[in-house]
Amino acid sequence: MNIMPEQLEMITEQFKTLKDRSPFYAKKFDGIDLAAIKTQEEFETLPFTDKGDLREAYPLGLTAVPMEKIVRIHSSSGTTGTPVIVPYTKKDVEDWAVQFARCYEYAGVTPADRVQITPGYGLWTAGIGFQAGAELLGAMAVPMGPGNTEKQIQFMMDMETTVLTATASYALLLAEEIEKRGIQDKIKLKKLITGSERAGEKIRNRIIEALGVEYYDIYGLTEVYGPGIGISCQHSHGMHVWSDYVYLEIIDPDTGKVLPDGEWGEIVLTTLQKEGAPLIRFRTHDLSRIIPGECACGHNEHPRIDTITGRSDDMMKIHGVNVFPAQIEEILATFPELSSEYQIRLSHLDGRDTMRIYVETNGSVDWEDLRKRVASSVKAKIGFTPLVKIVELGLLPRSEKKTKRVFDERYD
Amino acid sequence: MNIMPEQLEMITEQFKTLKDRSPFYAKKFDGIDLAAIKTQEEFETLPFTDKGDLREAYPLGLTAVPMEKIVRIHSSSGTTGTPVIVPYTKKDVEDWAVQFARCYEYAGVTPADRVQITPGYGLWTAGIGFQAGAELLGAMAVPMGPGNTEKQIQFMMDMETTVLTATASYALLLAEEIEKRGIQDKIKLKKLITGSERAGEKIRNRIIEALGVEYYDIYGLTEVYGPGIGISCQHSHGMHVWSDYVYLEIIDPDTGKVLPDGEWGEIVLTTLQKEGAPLIRFRTHDLSRIIPGECACGHNEHPRIDTITGRSDDMMKIHGVNVFPAQIEEILATFPELSSEYQIRLSHLDGRDTMRIYVETNGSVDWEDLRKRVASSVKAKIGFTPLVKIVELGLLPRSEKKTKRVFDERYD
Repeated sequence: MNIMPEQLEMITEQFKTLKDRSPFYAKKFDGIDLAAIKTQEEFETLPFTDKGDLREAYPLGLTAVPMEKIVRIHSSSGTTGTPVIVPYTKKDVEDWAVQFARCYEYAGVTPADRVQITPGYGLWTAGIGFQAGAELLGAMAVPMGPGNTEKQIQFMMDMETTVLTATASYALLLAEEIEKRGIQDKIKLKKLITGSERAGEKIRNRIIEALGVEYYDIYGLTEVYGPGIGISCQHSHGMHVWSDYVYLEIIDPDTGKVLPDGEWGEIVLTTLQKEGAPLIRFRTHDLSRIIPGECACGHNEHPRIDTITGRSDDMMKIHGVNVFPAQIEEILATFPELSSEYQIRLSHLDGRDTMRIYVETNGSVDWEDLRKRVASSVKAKIGFTPLVKIVELGLLPRSEKKTKRVFDERYD
Repeated sequence: MNIMPEQLEMITEQFKTLKDRSPFYAKKFDGIDLAAIKTQEEFETLPFTDKGDLREAYPLGLTAVPMEKIVRIHSSSGTTGTPVIVPYTKKDVEDWAVQFARCYEYAGVTPADRVQITPGYGLWTAGIGFQAGAELLGAMAVPMGPGNTEKQIQFMMDMETTVLTATASYALLLAEEIEKRGIQDKIKLKKLITGSERAGEKIRNRIIEALGVEYYDIYGLTEVYGPGIGISCQHSHGMHVWSDYVYLEIIDPDTGKVLPDGEWGEIVLTTLQKEGAPLIRFRTHDLSRIIPGECACGHNEHPRIDTITGRSDDMMKIHGVNVFPAQIEEILATFPELSSEYQIRLSHLDGRDTMRIYVETNGSVDWEDLRKRVASSVKAKIGFTPLVKIVELGLLPRSEKKTKRVFDERYD
């Protein structure tokens, strides 16, 4: 995808001062004359920024403005290793809300809507982003935060919530709970906006069917504002990414080469307006592609990425074969007897790697036959035979945040 | 305290339309000609609004603007009975931030400060209020949310936090933890802002001593914006309450009569600018008094209330005597051998009410003698003899939110 002239101008403009603005950028681009970068080709010679670079800058080394201009920090969870701290100026906070309000607009949300917010607040970027965007648009934010399903459902009925925002996992949990209670007619939901984790077609369809909602995918990551830098519109399953705030590249995760539109690879983002912590060619590790062609909504100034199929660091290597969880999920989705929930467990037993796949079904199915059919389908499509374990419907854990479905226990 | 002419004007202005703006106010002031209210004396004839009225309006009956103008709701916790839902317009949200930023200014907070926010987010008004005010002022918000003491202390050191915002209970827990680890010299705290629960002198002094901070008290309640409608300044232990946003009365909780400045009673608030849910003569149940005279800070346009000593519904009746927890706390505070933590348990044993008081001390004290001295001090000052139980230092539970110190188990 060609860089737009306005984008190139915003990039070259920030390149004039970037190295002087913080030791982080001075070090990152040491020996490179950023002011000399004038074309897309020259831009593509610049080194990537990776999460590791950001971790090294802990705590506030990323900051590219005088510290008094920072009005907020957010942080990635830091469950593995040092957290990443992202500093925001007042303009960054406002720009994020503007982008998020645009997301709601693309999803057809209006000031008459009531938006129930179930993601978390605090250092995490989700809750407050969903709230600021809703308030800027003029919709009514119902700021629940995570968990407490009983109260979520009570408020969903009593506040007559029309828009639910949640991880796909929690939306699924709520959908199953609402179905179980038989209260679908007391729920006024029209739209669901999910983000922050990959969800396959089967899970989506399960939620859509149970709640009777339009399903929107939101895109974003803590390092680049947070959720809200792109969303699917009413005409497409791809997500428009705001070209006035980020420049989008898709690269081959192995070679780092920029790929042509339509080809699958890793999303790389460059911020165009961010003051607190600009990022140049940030490797998101999210796997997608740029969808070529025009979108029926007409907003072709904002390129579309396809539904995220996973993360480049999700890849499992087993029996010498590279497998992504999404591939297993797609195979499972071809079995209508199975629920949308599953678990993949990798272990090292008797000197060899083993993949166990747990799936759910009900009692009316021949479990032994189903087990064999699932195993041979994986064998046919991926090249090795997993151990398939079938369990009762509802037995696999559901989550109020992101459901962990892959467990690699080989090196524990 | 006399109503200011500007306040009276704001009140009479909203009275012109209030009854037409929602069925809640139409019903509340049924038979009363609000437009005829022109003087303080006439205002004081109006009925109070109580939490029960607000509960009856559940879910959104309070709303005094067209519903599309509401951009947010907050809610009281509703641990007992129906929750109260408070709707906010965009102006209400902005006004709240303006008041909160003013609180920080009165506490001497500047854009160079880093404000660690430990109260909760979501439906509760605390976290997002502390954050919005800090950001509007231009300080750096470090939005932690509640709990996770390990991470709180890590971020306090790494982000070089200068202002801690917390309940007094959680500030005490953090102070004790920092002391225990001997890391006071790694902590850059200069100010502590606490709210939402009563804390006596001994607890305050304990925190001030451990953290070496200036201690500020913030005032507010979910029904009237949230915390941030007043704060203590650098010259006083009273809290200035923003006279451009609320009109303040102190009443006798039994008779409802307005009390002269200086006399202790219950705080009653009338909002002057609130659009989403104006409140007229709202009984807060918080006990305080208006501090007469001038404040050294010079901001005499904003009257001062004294430190909240409790809630009118906190009162315990035992052996025919009315006792407030604060009275017991004051007595305990006269014993330097005791820590600042305590518990009061009321039970009904063998046909009579009993008060047990649990206190903490260390091993170098004669426990039996201390026990007797505490019991006779309560007897001398309040009129009955409690059972005093002494436990090891640190044994009573500390809390990350509000520490519950009174347990009435008589009617369980």
